[in-house]
Amino acid sequence: MQKILNVALDNRSYPITIGENLLSQFEHFKLHSGQRVLVVTNDTIAPIYLQDLLDMLEAHGVKTDSVIVPDGEQYKTMETWNQILTALLANNHTRSSILVALGGGVIGDVAGFAASAYQRGIKFIQVPTTLLSQVDSSVGGKTAINHPLGKNMIGAFYQPQSVVIDINCLKTLPQRELSAGLAEVIKYGIIMDSAFFNWLETHIDDLLNLDVDALSYCIYRCCELKAQVVAADETEQDMRAILNLGHTYGHAIEAELGYGNWLHGEAVSVGMLMAAQTAKLLGLLADKDIERIENLLIKAKLPVKRPEQMAIESYIPHMLRDKKVISGKLRLVIPTKIGQVEVMDGIEKSVVLESINNS
Amino acid sequence: MQKILNVALDNRSYPITIGENLLSQFEHFKLHSGQRVLVVTNDTIAPIYLQDLLDMLEAHGVKTDSVIVPDGEQYKTMETWNQILTALLANNHTRSSILVALGGGVIGDVAGFAASAYQRGIKFIQVPTTLLSQVDSSVGGKTAINHPLGKNMIGAFYQPQSVVIDINCLKTLPQRELSAGLAEVIKYGIIMDSAFFNWLETHIDDLLNLDVDALSYCIYRCCELKAQVVAADETEQDMRAILNLGHTYGHAIEAELGYGNWLHGEAVSVGMLMAAQTAKLLGLLADKDIERIENLLIKAKLPVKRPEQMAIESYIPHMLRDKKVISGKLRLVIPTKIGQVEVMDGIEKSVVLESINNS
Ligand SMILES: NC(=O)c1ccc[n+]([C@@H]2O[C@H](COP(=O)([O-])OP(=O)(O)OC[C@H]3O[C@@H](n4cnc5c(N)ncnc54)[C@H](O)[C@@H]3O)[C@@H](O)[C@H]2O)c1
Ligand SMILES: NC(=O)c1ccc[n+]([C@@H]2O[C@H](COP(=O)([O-])OP(=O)(O)OC[C@H]3O[C@@H](n4cnc5c(N)ncnc54)[C@H](O)[C@@H]3O)[C@@H](O)[C@H]2O)c1
Ligand SMILES: [Zn+2]
Ligand SMILES: [Zn+2]
Repeated sequence: MQKILNVALDNRSYPITIGENLLSQFEHFKLHSGQRVLVVTNDTIAPIYLQDLLDMLEAHGVKTDSVIVPDGEQYKTMETWNQILTALLANNHTRSSILVALGGGVIGDVAGFAASAYQRGIKFIQVPTTLLSQVDSSVGGKTAINHPLGKNMIGAFYQPQSVVIDINCLKTLPQRELSAGLAEVIKYGIIMDSAFFNWLETHIDDLLNLDVDALSYCIYRCCELKAQVVAADETEQDMRAILNLGHTYGHAIEAELGYGNWLHGEAVSVGMLMAAQTAKLLGLLADKDIERIENLLIKAKLPVKRPEQMAIESYIPHMLRDKKVISGKLRLVIPTKIGQVEVMDGIEKSVVLESINNS
Repeated sequence: MQKILNVALDNRSYPITIGENLLSQFEHFKLHSGQRVLVVTNDTIAPIYLQDLLDMLEAHGVKTDSVIVPDGEQYKTMETWNQILTALLANNHTRSSILVALGGGVIGDVAGFAASAYQRGIKFIQVPTTLLSQVDSSVGGKTAINHPLGKNMIGAFYQPQSVVIDINCLKTLPQRELSAGLAEVIKYGIIMDSAFFNWLETHIDDLLNLDVDALSYCIYRCCELKAQVVAADETEQDMRAILNLGHTYGHAIEAELGYGNWLHGEAVSVGMLMAAQTAKLLGLLADKDIERIENLLIKAKLPVKRPEQMAIESYIPHMLRDKKVISGKLRLVIPTKIGQVEVMDGIEKSVVLESINNS
């Protein structure tokens, strides 16, 4: 059994299908016999999943090519993007070809941006294979590459024609990556859904054990919540900002320690606790809520203490360089209770420093 | 006095302002004091127009930076695009910065694509300085760069927030470039407006002499006609194809002789006559119409004979590689009388060869 969520944004609508073993089920891809496809993946995922996927598509009359790029955030670059575009051109792909992104958020972002730019836009299908990409990049249509002068600075808003989430893929995902994805999952509970947070408190072990029903409910709910936020943002300017809970603090950790040392989700985990400390200092969040958040993150096998080697003063410069900073003032997402946050401007640096110190 | 045309596409609407000396008139740019702008231009145009434009904008409180890229179609590349993006990042431009493209179609295309991709899209203003870019790339929202494996293969549909057409800029444009622009102007008459074609027959000298009233009427009308075609194309799939009259034949000349030897407009001039010969062979176009087209092109100082050094057989492979070819069959835009064309599929190669031979 699979769940289908229809995401309707920008007058377009596409289905996210969530279930077991979907990579072997042609119907979820919304492809037709005779169509041409380029599958983009990386050298970690290719040996596990690529050939079976190509075989399945070919068996249904789809003509396939593939391109394998190197694994890692450090390859989310213009060069890799060009490698994908060159593969499209070298194989004479036309405007009616379809690009399939098979991988985590890195592959989804760079391949999605290639699809948006090839002949000014061809269709693409997301097949996210990490928990983080399943609950986050499946919705919202953001694609991007990094530039030496900034992360995700070059890209496009571009919606997929469908998203296929095969829960089985998580079986080969390293435990640390699974937990990193859970940080974003827990984030949705904190920012907007206390009932979901409650559910997570009782089902976090099922998720870690890859229980199919728990995972499929959880991913569905996260995509649904993100879709709500993104849709609301078309009118309310600030709405989308709430998705950045913990991210401004977290980015400082990622940037200072070098991307890759701490996973994004790990930095977000500690960052959410720092935001909770900020809320506490402002008298906005109760101790017992901070405890519940911390306990859930611990159960999800996520770090809850800031990196020891990083000086407290070194956070601020990074936080000021964050994309969401407006004219030097710190703007932060602050939890006010479980299931509710506020976007606050002009927070004092001393409060920020103390929040970090307390974490 | 200036003319303003409002282009409404994709639920968005933007003004094209056409007139004399607009580069020195702040109001047409729709900018505000305090905004930040990056002006993109090339090393031919910069010495003539850049400093005055920057001074004018600064005088109205706009904070300006500029980036000067090398002149030429051979620089419409990913490297130049990256140069513009790097300039945006190095100068800490934010999502609210505005990019101004000051130059011909090359600058408009590469800078427009940079604007579409920087932080997933910032506003941009087109200041087209060639006749071709004024009558063609101002409308339609196509942006692109070239790839070693194909022209205009990478890009985005991205609309400017306004287009400022300063007719004075044409005073420094080489005569050959002016005539190349007239080829596209004449094209509009042939494909959809016989009255405009008549008008051109009596005003072509005024245009060549840069008569302000004639130019401003002519540019306005061309933009209006292109906007009609592009708007219709949102529903009728084939409509936009009529803009390619002469282009499939022309591309063969450009590709075989190397881009830059024959200007695009020059190749289109001969290409339109080849399409007219095809129409004649199919019994669809009267001799006197072919004569009128040829005479107007001659008066516009455009070539009307195919390049001698190019063998007739060498056209076909290029024509088959054209983006508009669908599964190996030649699809051509064929004039049926002045002001009317048809898009025809499956035209015999022998007819194509004879049309070339007769031109
Ligand atoms: N577009 C968006 O809305 C959005 C949202 C969130 C994050 N992102 C981007 O996503 C990226 C992070 O995504 P991520 O966490 O998925 O990282 P990732 O894509 O680097 O994947 C993490 C690691 O897991 C490996 N992997 C992926 N699937 C696997 C599987 N099934 N089995 C075994 N190994 C597997 C990958 O090869 C990689 O080594 C960042 O670049 C971030 O900017 C984008
Ligand atoms: N986006 C679209 O819809 C669209 C439409 C048509 C063409 N194009 C693209 O436009 C390009 C051709 O445009 P173009 O013909 O303007 O070529 P161009 O931009 O190369 O300009 C022609 C030459 O004139 C110079 N020049 C420009 N303005 C000048 C001025 N005022 N005074 C003196 N010199 C000046 C340029 O530096 C260049 O050397 C091609 O790359 C084509 O693909 C795009
Ligand atoms: Zn995140
Ligand atoms: Zn043209």
